[in-house]
Amino acid sequence: MAENSNDGLMRTLSAATRFESQVLDCDVIGKIPADINGAFYRVGAEWFYPPKFADDAILNADGYVSSFRIRNGRVDYTGRWVRTQRFDRNREAGRQLFGYYRNPFTDDPAISDPQHPNTRTVSNTAPLVHHGKLYTLKEDGLPYLIDPLTLETQGTWDAFGTWKSETFSAHPKLDPLTGEMVSYGYEANGLASDDLYIATLNSQGRVSDSVTVKVPYVSVIHDMALTHRHVVIPFGGYVTGMERLREGKIHWGWDKTKPSVIGVIPRGGSARDMRWFEGPERCMMHTFNAVTEGDKVILYAPFFDSNFFPFFPNVDGAPFNPAGARAFIRKITLDLGKRGNNWQEEILWPMQVGDLGKVDPRVLSLPTRYLYTQFYDETKPIDRAIVGSAGPARPSNCYGRFDLETGQLDTYFAGPTHVLQECSFVPRPSGQEGDGYLVGVATNYAEDRAELVIADAQRLGEGDVARVILPFKISQQVHGVWADARELGLG
Amino acid sequence: MAENSNDGLMRTLSAATRFESQVLDCDVIGKIPADINGAFYRVGAEWFYPPKFADDAILNADGYVSSFRIRNGRVDYTGRWVRTQRFDRNREAGRQLFGYYRNPFTDDPAISDPQHPNTRTVSNTAPLVHHGKLYTLKEDGLPYLIDPLTLETQGTWDAFGTWKSETFSAHPKLDPLTGEMVSYGYEANGLASDDLYIATLNSQGRVSDSVTVKVPYVSVIHDMALTHRHVVIPFGGYVTGMERLREGKIHWGWDKTKPSVIGVIPRGGSARDMRWFEGPERCMMHTFNAVTEGDKVILYAPFFDSNFFPFFPNVDGAPFNPAGARAFIRKITLDLGKRGNNWQEEILWPMQVGDLGKVDPRVLSLPTRYLYTQFYDETKPIDRAIVGSAGPARPSNCYGRFDLETGQLDTYFAGPTHVLQECSFVPRPSGQEGDGYLVGVATNYAEDRAELVIADAQRLGEGDVARVILPFKISQQVHGVWADARELGLG
Repeated sequence: MAENSNDGLMRTLSAATRFESQVLDCDVIGKIPADINGAFYRVGAEWFYPPKFADDAILNADGYVSSFRIRNGRVDYTGRWVRTQRFDRNREAGRQLFGYYRNPFTDDPAISDPQHPNTRTVSNTAPLVHHGKLYTLKEDGLPYLIDPLTLETQGTWDAFGTWKSETFSAHPKLDPLTGEMVSYGYEANGLASDDLYIATLNSQGRVSDSVTVKVPYVSVIHDMALTHRHVVIPFGGYVTGMERLREGKIHWGWDKTKPSVIGVIPRGGSARDMRWFEGPERCMMHTFNAVTEGDKVILYAPFFDSNFFPFFPNVDGAPFNPAGARAFIRKITLDLGKRGNNWQEEILWPMQVGDLGKVDPRVLSLPTRYLYTQFYDETKPIDRAIVGSAGPARPSNCYGRFDLETGQLDTYFAGPTHVLQECSFVPRPSGQEGDGYLVGVATNYAEDRAELVIADAQRLGEGDVARVILPFKISQQVHGVWADARELGLG
Repeated sequence: MAENSNDGLMRTLSAATRFESQVLDCDVIGKIPADINGAFYRVGAEWFYPPKFADDAILNADGYVSSFRIRNGRVDYTGRWVRTQRFDRNREAGRQLFGYYRNPFTDDPAISDPQHPNTRTVSNTAPLVHHGKLYTLKEDGLPYLIDPLTLETQGTWDAFGTWKSETFSAHPKLDPLTGEMVSYGYEANGLASDDLYIATLNSQGRVSDSVTVKVPYVSVIHDMALTHRHVVIPFGGYVTGMERLREGKIHWGWDKTKPSVIGVIPRGGSARDMRWFEGPERCMMHTFNAVTEGDKVILYAPFFDSNFFPFFPNVDGAPFNPAGARAFIRKITLDLGKRGNNWQEEILWPMQVGDLGKVDPRVLSLPTRYLYTQFYDETKPIDRAIVGSAGPARPSNCYGRFDLETGQLDTYFAGPTHVLQECSFVPRPSGQEGDGYLVGVATNYAEDRAELVIADAQRLGEGDVARVILPFKISQQVHGVWADARELGLG
């Protein structure tokens, strides 16, 4: 594999976001509801220096954190790089020292401690707000503490010394009733290790309970789900091992012969309480929510049929199959009252959706009526004359509210030149489930800029109530979260 | 006059620069000479909120300071608003409170102290580096102190209490031999006052000598010149007065019946030593340099024939005449050995030039061989298919080195889609006059971005040695200055 040069042309491919910025009192079209006071935090990935290998995964690009601080109908935007140990090392060298995604054997010799994954994490996946603090997360390392106002990086965080895994998931779950956080780390004890560490953190951010279990096989465990009684751990298809890493390959390959797996363990349970269920080939990345009803654990998730990531090759050498990278809203039921493997799966809507699902955080782990995610409505085609080939093949032009009670789908449409990133839910104070706003960033290809759209989650069909205009495009979000001003003492 | 609304569309006209940013380790095309260690500081004007009156002067827009920090062949860019008292007041209100350029009678009633000009200055004209400090300047108020690394605004500066004028020129002159600064303030004692304050500041930034004189008539005194013996004060054409201000007009009008004027006073002289010389109608904005030879004071300046600024209307009601807004490199000789008015003027090159002239700072106030300024070479036409009408009518596509000894013109050409802003001279350490680089920002309309071009001042015809690429356009510079790292302790 030829290494990339550091020439300007390559680097300016990410020109729109290679900078840090603050936009004070952003232009607003429409009117921002007066009852919104807080900040929308986003984390994304962007190459500060070009990758060492041209075919590396974008998942290996540097973390970039941004915020839209909204108060009194006015908005300030801030965007900064996450100053990881890796970012600082590259800056010092003036080039990319780190090799393939999660393969330290492909790093520049200048990197002395390849066995410690924490020096390699780019912290580019998701923001977390808990116990009054803001963090950026990536599943291959520890969280980074971020100043919620300036977005300055303040170092790594190990739950004040109580976290006992080298890794920390990008998708911990917050219990709205107890204020607890349940999180996990896989490859917990070193590269390709089969240890899965699962822990509960109290409302002060300290581990109050933890367990370590062995996984059936080492795979991506990207997301989890939480019920009021159980922790749900889905994964499948991706494989790794020290041999493929020593061969200089990217961390993951896809093995379609591997079953999909869902682990279920009671909250506070011990290793022997873990039950593993097996299903068909699936690429299981994100979840909406889960609920425990009697002996049954019901998981709602927009899983893919097969491998979603072209840069993680099939281990059998077969070419990547785009037809397999299709996500649907699935309901998977596991009956803990029955012995042995049982797995009931149902596709709730026949349409293909984006897999970045959200629910109202007030019902996380609890019975849930509404699921939210972005999708491509082909009846509202994108204007290719303007977007050209710059936009994705299936651009998300809509946010959807999927009603599990009635089967109804309510749709927000951003416009023919707008491509939507993941939405987040902004609860309206003292409201019930679904009472609030959907916020998310749209790339406006007509104006070559980013816009934060704000829509009433109960009136998606009426369009957005406000758009916050940025004077430039911003980096592709992976995940975002809304934080009320009181949660972070923003004032 | 209808007031502007604060709607997004108006404000996004300045979208490219309504934000603050830092670009770390900028992309570079070519190679930055290793002997360059310092920072290029720029000050420009941009509306943070739209003007209160649509026909206001751009000179009234908010100050924006930016820097290119260059060291070891790598560059960091930073850009920030100058946080003037006025900027902060507007931010608090969320709109433009201030009326026409230098007319407090047109301000919003919320502004309580219209008589104090310092609350109105936008500090948008020029950076100043002296006694180890960085300032932003505008001739209608006091300087603002700026942190040379972060560009944070640190408040106004009155030479540690020794400066006795309400105003401070944007074009003080630094004596390379003594380290002194000679500066002045006109309208020194209140709006439309005919007091001109001229002072020498020592190398610690304290006034060591000053004099106040009455001007023949109150006019723009935008720039000065300094010789080893004399202070030279040119102005002409523009007029103001309390009556026109009370009528709600913009500060200046153009009166073609007024003579141009040059005042000459010995350095350290008293008011009675000031001599005023009169010349024909001229718009006298910027100077290159001046020198005293025996009894003669010789001024080199790119003055305009007549009014350069369309937004300062003719007092006789005649429409603005673009044909008068032409600048030429002029040599004006004044013989102090002769009584009465004597004024010899010569145009040294027949070609029209931009009026933002520079010399090697090592020869300021001393005999000088090379003049530098930008101009439009019509033999290298701009590509209107790409620049469209976004670029100026006469875009500066070249920097010129004008050799007073040989009459030769050496030219740097930026390219058919590039429009150049003012250049600055970067002396090569321990070199003679002209040994160094020209640096300046070009707007690249093909890529919709700004580029800092760096050319060897002794080999302009060979093109630039390096271009620093920014991922966006930046605000139009008014003036810039190069500071060696040691001058500001940048390291």
